[in-house]
Amino acid sequence: MKFSYNQIAGQSAERLAALSDGIFAVAMTLLLLELHTPTRELIHREGDLRHALAAFSPQLVVYLMSFITLGIFWVGQQTQLNYLARSDRDLTWIHLAFLFAVTIMPFSTRLLNEFLRYRTALLAYWANILVLGLTLYWSWGYATRAGLVREDIPRHVPPAICRRILIAQSLYACGALLSVLNTYWSIGFIVLVQLHYAIGLRLEKKQ
Amino acid sequence: MKFSYNQIAGQSAERLAALSDGIFAVAMTLLLLELHTPTRELIHREGDLRHALAAFSPQLVVYLMSFITLGIFWVGQQTQLNYLARSDRDLTWIHLAFLFAVTIMPFSTRLLNEFLRYRTALLAYWANILVLGLTLYWSWGYATRAGLVREDIPRHVPPAICRRILIAQSLYACGALLSVLNTYWSIGFIVLVQLHYAIGLRLEKKQ
Amino acid sequence: MKFSYNQIAGQSAERLAALSDGIFAVAMTLLLLELHTPTRELIHREGDLRHALAAFSPQLVVYLMSFITLGIFWVGQQTQLNYLARSDRDLTWIHLAFLFAVTIMPFSTRLLNEFLRYRTALLAYWANILVLGLTLYWSWGYATRAGLVREDIPRHVPPAICRRILIAQSLYACGALLSVLNTYWSIGFIVLVQLHYAIGLRLEKKQ
Amino acid sequence: MKFSYNQIAGQSAERLAALSDGIFAVAMTLLLLELHTPTRELIHREGDLRHALAAFSPQLVVYLMSFITLGIFWVGQQTQLNYLARSDRDLTWIHLAFLFAVTIMPFSTRLLNEFLRYRTALLAYWANILVLGLTLYWSWGYATRAGLVREDIPRHVPPAICRRILIAQSLYACGALLSVLNTYWSIGFIVLVQLHYAIGLRLEKKQ
Repeated sequence: MKFSYNQIAGQSAERLAALSDGIFAVAMTLLLLELHTPTRELIHREGDLRHALAAFSPQLVVYLMSFITLGIFWVGQQTQLNYLARSDRDLTWIHLAFLFAVTIMPFSTRLLNEFLRYRTALLAYWANILVLGLTLYWSWGYATRAGLVREDIPRHVPPAICRRILIAQSLYACGALLSVLNTYWSIGFIVLVQLHYAIGLRLEKKQ
Repeated sequence: MKFSYNQIAGQSAERLAALSDGIFAVAMTLLLLELHTPTRELIHREGDLRHALAAFSPQLVVYLMSFITLGIFWVGQQTQLNYLARSDRDLTWIHLAFLFAVTIMPFSTRLLNEFLRYRTALLAYWANILVLGLTLYWSWGYATRAGLVREDIPRHVPPAICRRILIAQSLYACGALLSVLNTYWSIGFIVLVQLHYAIGLRLEKKQ
Repeated sequence: MKFSYNQIAGQSAERLAALSDGIFAVAMTLLLLELHTPTRELIHREGDLRHALAAFSPQLVVYLMSFITLGIFWVGQQTQLNYLARSDRDLTWIHLAFLFAVTIMPFSTRLLNEFLRYRTALLAYWANILVLGLTLYWSWGYATRAGLVREDIPRHVPPAICRRILIAQSLYACGALLSVLNTYWSIGFIVLVQLHYAIGLRLEKKQ
Repeated sequence: MKFSYNQIAGQSAERLAALSDGIFAVAMTLLLLELHTPTRELIHREGDLRHALAAFSPQLVVYLMSFITLGIFWVGQQTQLNYLARSDRDLTWIHLAFLFAVTIMPFSTRLLNEFLRYRTALLAYWANILVLGLTLYWSWGYATRAGLVREDIPRHVPPAICRRILIAQSLYACGALLSVLNTYWSIGFIVLVQLHYAIGLRLEKKQ
C-alpha cells in the first residue's frame, strides 16, 4: 500500500527542471548580493572611488569563478535531464541533494572571499564542488540503472557524461591539492579548468 | 454576473506550478542566506577557521532539516498537481495559503537556529510544518470534491495521498511532543522522520 | 525599417508569464525576509520568547495583507494572460510597468510596518496598490483594442475583468480614505476586502 | 570522443529561457531590496516621513532606470531566443556571460545611487550596459553563423536585431560621454533613450 505513494511521487522531470532553474537563478544572483559598495565616508575624489573599485578585483575573480562553477553544473544537469524519459521519487531526491549543494555555493563563495589565503576556506569550497560532482554522477548512475533514460539515446552519450564528470573532478582535486603550496595557485588552476570547460580554450583539442 | 469572474480566475494549474517552483526555489536558497561567515577579526590561524566552521555544524543540521522539509512538501504538492485536470479559483487560494507557509519557513528556521534550546522556537517550527500539512490535505480534499482531479487517476492513489499526509503529520506531532523532554530529542526525531521519507531508510518496509 | 524590430519584439506570452511568476515568487518570499528574529540578549526564558513572538503579530498581519495583495494581483494577471492569443511589444511594457509595482511591494510593506500609525505610510502603500490596479486595467484595455485576445473568449468575460478591477480599486480607495480617522481602520478594512476576494466571505453573495 | 560531450551539452533553448527568466526576475526584484526605510528615530511627525520619502526620489529614478534597462535587455534576449530552432553549448555559454552581466546590475545600481555625482560610478554603470549589449550582439552573430536560427525567419529580422543593438549602444555611449559635463546630464539622457525604447516616445518616428 505504502509503496504506491512512492511510486506516484516525484515523476515530473519538467517540474524538477523548473525548480532547478529557479534555485540556480537565485543562487547565481545572490553570489553578488554580498558585494558591498565602498563606504561613502572614505570616498572624497574620483580617484578614491577608482581605487576602491580596483581593490574589488580579486573578489570579482572569486565571484566569476563561482558563477562559472554554477554554470558548468547547470549545463551538466540540463544535459542529463534532457535525456530522461521520466523521473521517479529516488531520482528526485538525488537531485534535491544536488540542489542543496547549489544553495550552499553562495556561502562557500563568501567564505573564500573573506579568507582568501586560508587553506581551510579553499578546501571547504572544493568540498562543495566535490558534492556537486558526486551527486550528479550518482544521479546519472541511478537513472541508467532504474531505466529512466530515453531509449533513443545515442550509445556514446552515457559514457561521455560519466567521463566528463570524472575528468573534471580529477582536475578540481588537483586544484585543491595545489593549496598545499598556496591558495592562489589553487584558485588560478581552478579558474583555468573552468575557462577550459566554459570557453573551450585551445587545450580542448589536445585532451 | 460577479460569479463569472470567479469562474474564470485561477484556472491555470501550469502557472500555479510555476509560481510554486519559484517560491520553493527562493525559500530553499534563502535558508542559508543568514548563515554568516565567521568574523574576520577572530580568525588568526587555519585552526581558528576550522573551529569556527565546526561550530556551525548544529546550525547546518537545522538548515538541512528545513531544506528536506521543503523538499518533502515540494514533492507532495507536485504529486497532487500532476493528478489535476485543471485548477479553479478556490484551489488556487488554498495553494497560496500553502505557499505562504512556505515563505515563513526561512523565518522559522532562523528562529530555531537562534533559540535551539527553547521549546517555544521548536513549537513555532512545528506549527509551520503543521500548516503546510493541513493546507496540502485541504487542497487534495477540495480538488477531489470539486472534480478537478484527472479521471484516469488509479483508484488507490487518492487514499495513498491522504494516508501519507496523516501519517507524516502524526510523526511530526510526536516529534513536537518530545520537546517536553528536550528540544534536541525533538530535532533528532524529526530529522529521522524526514530521512525516512527522503532517503527511504530501512524502516520503510516495516511500516 | 525600424518598425520591424518593434513588430518582432516581446511576442512571447509564455515568457512574460514565466518572468511574472519569477518576480511574484521573489517578491512574495522577500516580504518576510525583513522579519528579524528577536534579539538573543533580551531572551532569558521561554516566557520572554513567547512575548517577543506575540509582539510580532501586528507585523504578521501586515505581511499577510501584502501576501494576499500579491496573490490577488497574480491571479488577476494570470486570468488576463490565459485569454491572450499572443503578446506584443507594447503589452509587454505595460506588464513590465505592472511588475515594477510588484517589486516595490516589499518596500511599501516594510515602510508600513515601521510606521504603522503614519497616514503617509498607509497612503504610500495604497498608491502601490493603485498602480497595480491601473496597469492591469490598462493592460486589458490595450490587449482588447490591439486584438491580442483569443477569439474564443466568452462574451461576458471582458466586462467581468474590467468590473472586478474597478470595484476592487473603489474598495481600496475607501480603505485609504478611512485613514483620515485612523490607519488601523484602513488596514482592517483593506484586510476585510482582501479576505472577501481571497476566501470569498459571505459578503460575496450580496454584492 | 571528448567532442561528443560538447555536442550534447546545452541544447535546450527552453531551459536557457527558464534560467534567464529566473535570473532577470531575481535581479529586478533585488534592485529595490537595498532601498532602506527611513530611520525610525528621525521621524516624529507625518511631515518628517513625507520629507524622508521625497528625499528618495532621485534614488527611485536610478532604480527605475535599472529596471527599464533590465526590461529592455530581457525583451531583446527573448526576441532572439524566439527565433532559435535550438541551442548549443557555445551559445549557452555566451548567454551565461550575458546573464553574469545581468547579476552585476543590482551592484552597479547601488554604486551609482551611492555616488550619484561620481563619473567613475556612471562609467561603471555604462560598462555594465555595454557588456550586456556586446554579449547579446555576439550571441546573435554566433547563432546566425552556427545555423541555430529557425529557417522560417523573415529576411528583414536578422539585420533589424543587429541594427537595434548598435543604435541603442551608440546612444548609451553618447550618454556616458555626457558625463564629461555632468553625471546628471548622462542619467537624464540615458533615461530618455530608455523611455524611447520602452514607451516608444514620439522620437521613434523621426529616427
